[in-house]
Formats: sequence, structure tokens, C-alpha cells
Amino acid sequence: MSVVVLTGGVGGAKLVLGLTQILPADQITAIVNTGDDFRHLGLWVSPDLDTLLYTLSGKANAVQGWGREGETWTFLETLRTLGGEDWFALGDGDLALHVLRTMRMSRGDTLAQITADFAHHWGVGITMLPMSNDAVATSLETDAGRLAFQSYFVERRCAPVVERITFDGAKQARSAPGVCEAILSADTRTILIAPSNPYLSIDPLLAVPGIEAALRAATAPVVAVTPIVGGDAVKGPTAKLMRELGVAVSPASVAAHYGTLLDGFLVDERDPTAQLSLPTFACDTLMHSLADRVRVAESALRFADSLR
Amino acid sequence: MSVVVLTGGVGGAKLVLGLTQILPADQITAIVNTGDDFRHLGLWVSPDLDTLLYTLSGKANAVQGWGREGETWTFLETLRTLGGEDWFALGDGDLALHVLRTMRMSRGDTLAQITADFAHHWGVGITMLPMSNDAVATSLETDAGRLAFQSYFVERRCAPVVERITFDGAKQARSAPGVCEAILSADTRTILIAPSNPYLSIDPLLAVPGIEAALRAATAPVVAVTPIVGGDAVKGPTAKLMRELGVAVSPASVAAHYGTLLDGFLVDERDPTAQLSLPTFACDTLMHSLADRVRVAESALRFADSLR
Repeated sequence: MSVVVLTGGVGGAKLVLGLTQILPADQITAIVNTGDDFRHLGLWVSPDLDTLLYTLSGKANAVQGWGREGETWTFLETLRTLGGEDWFALGDGDLALHVLRTMRMSRGDTLAQITADFAHHWGVGITMLPMSNDAVATSLETDAGRLAFQSYFVERRCAPVVERITFDGAKQARSAPGVCEAILSADTRTILIAPSNPYLSIDPLLAVPGIEAALRAATAPVVAVTPIVGGDAVKGPTAKLMRELGVAVSPASVAAHYGTLLDGFLVDERDPTAQLSLPTFACDTLMHSLADRVRVAESALRFADSLR
Repeated sequence: MSVVVLTGGVGGAKLVLGLTQILPADQITAIVNTGDDFRHLGLWVSPDLDTLLYTLSGKANAVQGWGREGETWTFLETLRTLGGEDWFALGDGDLALHVLRTMRMSRGDTLAQITADFAHHWGVGITMLPMSNDAVATSLETDAGRLAFQSYFVERRCAPVVERITFDGAKQARSAPGVCEAILSADTRTILIAPSNPYLSIDPLLAVPGIEAALRAATAPVVAVTPIVGGDAVKGPTAKLMRELGVAVSPASVAAHYGTLLDGFLVDERDPTAQLSLPTFACDTLMHSLADRVRVAESALRFADSLR
């Protein structure tokens, strides 16, 4: 029996890492947001896929919260002396993924094939699927105009006020081979929605035709892990974004956002659950240590099993 | 009055560096071989142009003889773990040139424009022109089959026996803007052929339509600096290649190869000049130190002036 996780980058990677400590890797499928992907300096960058690769292969920079441990920055320093764009921090080792990915894509390999090869080379045993092999680009309408995701997220550090979020190319995209199959499989025990940003990391996934319908048709329970802890987001722009979109920063807002898609909601013990009309389970959902990640993953699985 | 130098990479860069110590930079034009250029991992690599950039901006790795001083190798080490091709040593800082060049070429900028910008950013004041903005690819017919230049030079370390050398695309290539103009200009005092490999570094230049004719039509004397010192090549595969092509490793063979293109030949004092039927000047042409480079550059200019 397998577990499927819909995930963005950092927070989701922690949950998936927790799962890998308690389940055999071949029982885990991560379906990963690629709405943050973009072409930078001609290179195809897939931040969420790479964060999962780094986290699951033990290469992630835990202190920094993104990128690689032991990274060097000679490329970026040299690029700066040539007048190249330096707002997006491309580490020297990180570049290897981008250069190889870009070359292989130009030869006609799919993002899914390339991701599977990278995972294989780094000993990552889970099935890592991009949500789609087609380009889907999250962009934001803000008080500073329309911004591509990385321009909003990295270049502008999430400062602009967001009015609306779109997923360009999503309507034409096909889910990557295996994505809907994994969700619909009779062997799938649980479908988890990681504690990633619902609007920026999970919505792009749901915007790819077929994925939301598959989730609704799945026999396995769909359980979200809250991205809100103690009335705030653990990390990133989630809370600011929710306020800008006019919703309260609470698990109730997240539950309302996912609506009838969810069969259950793993909330944090710090937050009130009175408003929630779906099955919930409350625990400490902060995942600072590896033990925390294992504990949250275990709680999510046990809770989901109770809903079957 | 200006000086024009036809040059390959390492040896030629030393001569050009010598020239920059005795002439104002705006009186020097280097016309640079791009037959070694190739696309590697999707990136456009221009080894001779980059060697000149590194040498003239003080960034060259003098001990290693190629690449950058203070280079790091995180990209290549990471690439290796992903199963990427690692036979061509791409340093982290070196990558900045290749990534930026490739991105700008894909946007339609010419190699000449990009090279001029790189030189400008690094304070290289001479005019650096690629021989052509069009792709010309040196390849070698060898006892190991037909090999692209870098495959022969780097991957196979010049081990295969060379039978014939071709410059694919040369016939269709146009010389870069300014190349023939610099050669033909009435302001040009001297045209030097650097002590680069005649077969692999200078012949590609001569294969681009118009360049050889311009040299023959130029009013300035054309003077070659010998790549042969004491009956051997200073560096690289020149001597091995000459033997394989059936010619003696001597200045006479180089003079015969260039033929009537030359008005004079700066030979090394270690080598016999009796066989040479063109004007020669002999001196110590080894360029270990910066003082050596200045001395050889001065000798070449003085000798050329004597031929006007």
C-alpha cells in the first residue's frame, strides 16, 4: 500500500523526508509543484523538485533553508563581474542540475524522465513526479503589476501586495505520466497534501487538468497537513498572502480553500478547530528536527488510516 | 598606427599580453580563432577567446596554463554525481562566461558583441574579434576516426594520429565585422601571426573566406612568430601533429606552411635559419615571464617595422 503526497518545496520536503523514515521508499510517490519553474539565464530551474532532491539525498542546507550544503558561489560572483543578472542565487553545484536538465530537455527528454534519473543517481528511492512535463508558470497580479513567480518571490522578496494568482499554461498542460494513476490506484492507502503554501504550491497542481478530478475520484482518503501553526505561517509568504487575499490566517481558511477535496485535516494543536466541519486531528506539526518530521508523518498516516 | 595579431589561445595570449605592455590598448586588435569553439552540455564554449580574456584581465591560471586563477570545481563534482559528461573541465567561474554567452547568442547577439562586452566588463581595452560570428568547427580525421577538436584535444589528449584537418562551416562563414577592415587598414602598422599552432589555431582563421586574401592585400607586413623552439613545440600537440602530417618539426616547415603569406618570420635563436628564404629575425622567443613576453613583442614589432 502506497502513499501519495502533493507537495511544494521546503515544508513538503520535510514531510516526505519524515515518510521515508517510516515507509519503504517504493511505497512513496511525491507529486511536485512545477509552477515555480522558470528559465533563468537560459537554464531551466525547477526549485521544488530540486529542494526535494536535496532534502531526500541529504544534501540540503538546513541552516539556510534552501539550496545545497557546502555550496560554493564562484559562478555568481563571476557572473556579477560580467554584468549578468545576479538576483537569483544560483550556486555552483546547483547549476549542475540546471545545466543538465536544460540540455536534456533541449534533446527532448521530459522533466519526469530527467527528475527520475537525478533521483536515481542520488539514491532517492521514492517516485518523484513533476505535476506536469509541460510548462506551467505561476504569476501574480500585484500592486506592482503582473510578476512572474520568482520575480515576486525572490527578486521582490514577496513585498508586492498580491491581488490574484494565475497559472499560465495550466489549462493546456497534461499531468505527467503516473500522476493521476498514482492518485487513483487501488494500492494507494493515503493521499497527503503537504503543509506547502495552498495558493502558490498546491493550487498549481490542482490547476493541471485531471489532477483535482482524480483526487475527488480517489478511493484513498485525502488529508491535508496544515501550513498554519499558531495563527501564522511556518515560513514564507503564506500568511501575508492570505491577508492580502482577504482571508483569516487560520486552518479554517485553508480547509475552506481546499473545500470538499479534503477527507481530513491534520491541524496544529496550537490552533482552534471549532470552526472546522471536517474530520481533524491535532498535534504539534512543527518539523524542526528529523524526529519531528517522522512524528508528523506518522500522525498523518495514522489519522488518514482512521478515515478509510 | 595599430597592430593586428592573428591568434589562438595560450601562446598567442602571451604575445598579446606582451604587446599591451608596450602599446596603448586601443592600438591592438586580436583576431581570435574560434575553430575550437563547441557546444558542451548545451553551453557555447569559446576556449581561445576566453583564454585571451583571462590572460589580459589578469585572471589566467599561470601554473595550470589554462582556465582561471582561484577557480572552484563544485559544478563539475556535482555533475559527475548526476552522471553528466565530465571530460571537459568546466570551472565554476568559467561557467559564467559560457552561460551568459549561450543565453545572449540564443537572443540573437553575435559572438563579437558578446566578446566585446565581456572585455569591457573586465577592463580589457584591446579590440578582441572572433574570426567569425558564424560557427566554424575544427575536426580531425585520425586513426581513431573523425573527431571534433575538443574530443581530440581534451577527451583523447591528442593521442590519435592525425591524417587530415578540416574546418567545418568555414566556407559558409563570414569574417566578423572589423576583421578584414583591421587587416587592410592603412593605419595598421604590423600584422603578427602569434606563435599558435599553425594547423589548429591559425589555419581555421585562414579558412574563413576573405581573411587570407586580406592578409595578401594588406599594406602592413605580415610577420609570424615561430611556434617551434629548439626543434620542438613549446606546448601542446604541434610537434606531434607535424610529424604525423609528414613535415619536419622546424621553423622551415612552418614558413613553408604559411608560404608567401609571410613577409617575415621571427624565429628562435636555437633553431637553424639557413633553409629559410624569407626575411628572418632570431631571438629567444620563449615567453615564461612577463618580461619575456614584452621582449618578444618588442622584437616582433621592431622586426616588422624593418620590413615596411
